[in-house]
Amino acid sequence: MKQNVVKLEYAVRGPLVIRAAAIENELKKGANKPFKKVIRANLGDAHAMGAKPITFIRQILACASFPELIEKYDFPSDVKQRANELLDACGGRSVGAYSASYGIEIIRKDVAKYIEDRDGHPSNWEDVLITAGASMGIKSILNLFAPGNPPDGVLIPIPQYPLYSATLVEFGLEGVGYYLDEDKGWGLDMNELKGALEKSKKTCCVKCIVIINPGNPTGQVLREMGKPYTDEVELTSFMTISKGYMGECGLRGGWLEIVNMDKEVQTHLYKALSAMLCPTVLGQIATDAVARPPKQGEPSYDLYIKEKTAVLDSLKTRAKLVVDTFNSMEGFKCNPIQGAMYCFPRIQLPPKAIEAAKAEGKAADVFYAFSLLEETGICIVAGSGFKQRPGTYHFRTTILPQPELLNEMLTIFKEFHQKFTKKYS
Amino acid sequence: MKQNVVKLEYAVRGPLVIRAAAIENELKKGANKPFKKVIRANLGDAHAMGAKPITFIRQILACASFPELIEKYDFPSDVKQRANELLDACGGRSVGAYSASYGIEIIRKDVAKYIEDRDGHPSNWEDVLITAGASMGIKSILNLFAPGNPPDGVLIPIPQYPLYSATLVEFGLEGVGYYLDEDKGWGLDMNELKGALEKSKKTCCVKCIVIINPGNPTGQVLREMGKPYTDEVELTSFMTISKGYMGECGLRGGWLEIVNMDKEVQTHLYKALSAMLCPTVLGQIATDAVARPPKQGEPSYDLYIKEKTAVLDSLKTRAKLVVDTFNSMEGFKCNPIQGAMYCFPRIQLPPKAIEAAKAEGKAADVFYAFSLLEETGICIVAGSGFKQRPGTYHFRTTILPQPELLNEMLTIFKEFHQKFTKKYS
Repeated sequence: MKQNVVKLEYAVRGPLVIRAAAIENELKKGANKPFKKVIRANLGDAHAMGAKPITFIRQILACASFPELIEKYDFPSDVKQRANELLDACGGRSVGAYSASYGIEIIRKDVAKYIEDRDGHPSNWEDVLITAGASMGIKSILNLFAPGNPPDGVLIPIPQYPLYSATLVEFGLEGVGYYLDEDKGWGLDMNELKGALEKSKKTCCVKCIVIINPGNPTGQVLREMGKPYTDEVELTSFMTISKGYMGECGLRGGWLEIVNMDKEVQTHLYKALSAMLCPTVLGQIATDAVARPPKQGEPSYDLYIKEKTAVLDSLKTRAKLVVDTFNSMEGFKCNPIQGAMYCFPRIQLPPKAIEAAKAEGKAADVFYAFSLLEETGICIVAGSGFKQRPGTYHFRTTILPQPELLNEMLTIFKEFHQKFTKKYS
Repeated sequence: MKQNVVKLEYAVRGPLVIRAAAIENELKKGANKPFKKVIRANLGDAHAMGAKPITFIRQILACASFPELIEKYDFPSDVKQRANELLDACGGRSVGAYSASYGIEIIRKDVAKYIEDRDGHPSNWEDVLITAGASMGIKSILNLFAPGNPPDGVLIPIPQYPLYSATLVEFGLEGVGYYLDEDKGWGLDMNELKGALEKSKKTCCVKCIVIINPGNPTGQVLREMGKPYTDEVELTSFMTISKGYMGECGLRGGWLEIVNMDKEVQTHLYKALSAMLCPTVLGQIATDAVARPPKQGEPSYDLYIKEKTAVLDSLKTRAKLVVDTFNSMEGFKCNPIQGAMYCFPRIQLPPKAIEAAKAEGKAADVFYAFSLLEETGICIVAGSGFKQRPGTYHFRTTILPQPELLNEMLTIFKEFHQKFTKKYS
């Protein structure tokens, strides 16, 4: 079989997560454990952790799925109007018709408008493609680069979201890591970048740099880089409706925007996408609701703002709580979360723990994460799944458990860490 | 860029379809044409052509999207119960939570049960994966084969659905065509198969055979092959909710079932899929409704059967109408449609038409299809997009226009063909 598929690894859904599911099953069957439930802090899955959907999005989905509701149920008039507009844009007024492979035209236009309003840069709707989540969009862009000898190289941050390393291996491209500067809030370091580029010349030809913003797993935010980058650089940016205040992971919505891309390459991209028919139309409709939320004065506005603000305020509080708690723990060092729903604390592990891990054939941070899972039910992702500077250890946790559960988790985590440190001292 | 992406072609959404969209825009702007609308007989998109969704599926989707409706709207009790069961299987009872990458467990079980009931063979739910339509599943399986020198080879029927040829080019695999026997209702011919296999040995190592059943674009149905095939052959079969009586293309639902696959290969497949997070949860829920429709005695049963039967009866009538009409036309020869929603008539083109096509740098069947589009607004797909025996010409049309429109289309088509034949005689 294809060796690139054999080689690829994807830690976010790897052995730890599989073990977490097995433990959940054991608990269901009445197994006796030092805890009663698994706390899944491994995945950025807000709704699974108790976040409530935004009403406006879901009302539109219900109307689009079953249009009889537009007439017969008491939805706000702007919801009904939007659902009708979107249905008018569907073949046969049905979300069961294929859309264009690049997404429904009015949704692409709404997204372009959203990007313009957000960034203050012009955005051309024909360069916006609606995608089933960001991952699919990212893979379709990385698929344009050439494997071979030497292969095209892609600069990726370390730590990085493992979709990138997995996809590069799958596509036969060379991942060239550049370290984010943990001591400067996981910032981008130009000298590091230049060094990585220089070193890469022996093995590949770098054609592309991946910037994850807000950082995943690291939670930092990169600010505007200004000219000349905005005018000249070939850029593709991705957005998903799985994160942010809406957290609609399961609906699979998102987009990519292309700026300054070579027109011939773009034509081949569009052609390749057309063979995959179209992204889910209901996911596209949810994406439209994100790109064009209710405006002030519209019937759904007040509830929308109330729900959105509540989520964002709570995430802000939780982000601070998690970081402060970790920083109060011995051997922990955690940068502030500026964006995203993750943090990536650095942990010092006692030499005896490192030896014990080696004896089990595990990386020390994986060993730590497995111990945490088996003893407390808390599921995190070990830092080595995201890559990290050799000799350092981290893990990624989300801040998504609801406040009460999050407090419980942090208390248990603290106790575990003390016991663990003591055991291996 | 990657040369395999440059090389890939996908006729079903190629230049003819792009021109059809342009003509629609011209008509909207008041352009003067010999017709008033484009008839899209190119794509298997039932709802776009006026088919109505199955109520049961859509009611469940509405409830799952906006669960308040379960309490507050007058849906049948089995719809409410099903929606609740499916929500219970979602993280946080929300379709906005990720599912497992392989799909929601109870849906995989419902699908396994469906397959068992349909085929009379045992089906193991852990070997069933829910996918976002069949295309994504097909690509994930073809992605397991090895490119290289020589590459793995894949036997594909001719004519074939262009997803296969496009994906093989994209993945650097060798497509080895085997001709279906047009004179025997597009049947499978063992000698042809053996000959193709023998010839392929010069360029590749064949690892896999693609069987499209019901045939696309050809509409034939292959029957059970019996033992030893069912016990030994490594088989992956695919199903989509885009076709059949439900025709829910835009929802992106489907599944694949694995039988007898090498366990190690299967593990790598599951790992690779996990990097794509999950198929759309609403698409999965629609898939469940297809795999587990209402049973006799349940409140939704009567309407479900009425709607399903009406669609299937109408498709049957339309299938016969299209084939009979084509067979009454000079120079046409069309096999019966046994399954699927397509037919693939063979047409004789006058030598002068073939010359005129050559002068325009077009394949003769593409020339014919463009003429038909420009003069009548009927959009079909030329046979060369699916491959065909050299020197023969075909096209694919769907039978999806609703009866009145279909009659209109066939009348116009007949007139066009007479004029075309006369012009080039």
